[in-house]
Amino acid sequence: MNTPAPIRMAIVGYGNLGRGVEAAIAQNPDMQLQGIYSRRDPASVQTQFAASPVFHMDALDGNHSQIDVLILCGGSKDDLPQQSPALAARFNLVDSFDTHARIPEHFAAVDAQAQAGKTTALISAGWDPGMFSINRIMGEALLPDGDTYTFWGKGLSQGHSDAVRRVPGVAGGVQYTIPSPSAIEAVRSGSRPTLSTRQKHERHCYVVLAEGAEADAVRQAIVTMPHYFDEYDTTVNFISAEELAREHSAMPHGGFVIRSGNTGTPDKQHKQVVEYRIELGSNPEFTASVLVAYARAVHRMAGMGLHGAKTVFDVAPGWISPKAPEQLRKEAL
Amino acid sequence: MNTPAPIRMAIVGYGNLGRGVEAAIAQNPDMQLQGIYSRRDPASVQTQFAASPVFHMDALDGNHSQIDVLILCGGSKDDLPQQSPALAARFNLVDSFDTHARIPEHFAAVDAQAQAGKTTALISAGWDPGMFSINRIMGEALLPDGDTYTFWGKGLSQGHSDAVRRVPGVAGGVQYTIPSPSAIEAVRSGSRPTLSTRQKHERHCYVVLAEGAEADAVRQAIVTMPHYFDEYDTTVNFISAEELAREHSAMPHGGFVIRSGNTGTPDKQHKQVVEYRIELGSNPEFTASVLVAYARAVHRMAGMGLHGAKTVFDVAPGWISPKAPEQLRKEAL
Repeated sequence: MNTPAPIRMAIVGYGNLGRGVEAAIAQNPDMQLQGIYSRRDPASVQTQFAASPVFHMDALDGNHSQIDVLILCGGSKDDLPQQSPALAARFNLVDSFDTHARIPEHFAAVDAQAQAGKTTALISAGWDPGMFSINRIMGEALLPDGDTYTFWGKGLSQGHSDAVRRVPGVAGGVQYTIPSPSAIEAVRSGSRPTLSTRQKHERHCYVVLAEGAEADAVRQAIVTMPHYFDEYDTTVNFISAEELAREHSAMPHGGFVIRSGNTGTPDKQHKQVVEYRIELGSNPEFTASVLVAYARAVHRMAGMGLHGAKTVFDVAPGWISPKAPEQLRKEAL
Repeated sequence: MNTPAPIRMAIVGYGNLGRGVEAAIAQNPDMQLQGIYSRRDPASVQTQFAASPVFHMDALDGNHSQIDVLILCGGSKDDLPQQSPALAARFNLVDSFDTHARIPEHFAAVDAQAQAGKTTALISAGWDPGMFSINRIMGEALLPDGDTYTFWGKGLSQGHSDAVRRVPGVAGGVQYTIPSPSAIEAVRSGSRPTLSTRQKHERHCYVVLAEGAEADAVRQAIVTMPHYFDEYDTTVNFISAEELAREHSAMPHGGFVIRSGNTGTPDKQHKQVVEYRIELGSNPEFTASVLVAYARAVHRMAGMGLHGAKTVFDVAPGWISPKAPEQLRKEAL
């Protein structure tokens, strides 16, 4: 029996997520890293593995024939809204676009290019959006009379940390999201509580002030920031740059999706609780692992002629696995 | 906008699972119960809802044009190996075949008939096999350097209770599967322990002796039963028929699938833990809810021309949801 050729993956953007993807590809024997593409001078990019090839972004188009799937590792604010549609015109790709409110327009923009180019482009992979989204819709489908609860943390939130760092007077900082233990307990009991945003999570910020900045003004700017902090109990702790580097450089995260519902007839009900939980030593490495598994599915779907923009909702579980369907049925069903 | 016609479901077999399906269909406004088909005299069948139509099994074939999907609620030992292939020749269907070791041959038998009849027949839906299987293969795909652990319980196991009741000298009985708390804790820590079958679960039986039966002989027959009990620490408690009825008629169950793995480079690793957990007030009603959601997917897949035998591994999450893809992307991604 012939071993199929490895899937040739290319990484676009080489920050924490790109480094996670480089490491994840090395864990999957059916894949091969074709290259890392960066806007920086390739000679200046330090990769984790000596053998990882680095190219300038300008070389991407010319290497088209050597690449099966692009894994986009840029940011959702500035990079992906441009890159994903533009690259979907010629490449199969996966991205981790995570601005929930703008997903429909991002999907439409990517879909137009992918349909025209007959490529397969899966957006918003990762854990939320991503694995958590899957568990939200499956929980709802399995238990239609129910409530869905998503908790994040304890963990460092990259989006909220970025928001803190954009506040004038902030020289550096991180934000941790902390789920409320009493809220989790109430939800797990199957009692289906109604919980306000404020009751579910707290937000803890550790901030280094810029020279001359006023602590009270910075604190006020953070805790009143719309969407990010104004609906939460937010605490702001001011620390030194040394403490920030020493105590807050790891990137743990985690969270839960819980569906709590009732089955049975109106006069004889039973409580049913389904919980999906992750506890991550490294948030970017886990997100990267999800992107890489869904890049495998993208390669398969492109081969099946399933073109256009896709999300994790469109991907059968078997398609992300390296194993053949008959092996999965025999070993894992 | 026209509301699509409801999906017309038929239940084949009316025990605990069939009753659960009857209740679950009533919770889904996009479905309609066409009928309950039983080998018993229809006049003798007491349904949970007065409006549920009951037919003799012999009427099934004649009602073909009124049915979109059959939900088979018979047993895996005697009913489904015959029924699923035979009915897949003409009907779209879903079953809960759960004899893990015989799934490949069941799949092959159903596939032959479904391919020939151009029907869609999804086998082995439920929670294990089913939701747990999905979480096993997804965990493995996301964290290739990892270990998968499945725990069952605390709960009443229908298969093991049936096995107990088949022992000569047993007038009635139930079996509870109990996961070991220390084993669960070790797995959740991310330490990836090696656990024997005996270390993971205990089995507790509550048995009513038949008149004249010898307790020691019955106990010995149970604890040495191959596959079911011989590899476990099994305790057998003898109780009265009254106590069995009073204390052991509920059907709770539950369990966990945990994938514990490592990401990163060989010299810098991070622990990652993914856990899927269910806690069921009623095992048959939850299994029924899964069957009903996958019956919706079967209806959709039949419409897409995806014929043949299928499993949960072949079903994209969006297909089990009553909502349209654009609504799911907007609300749940």
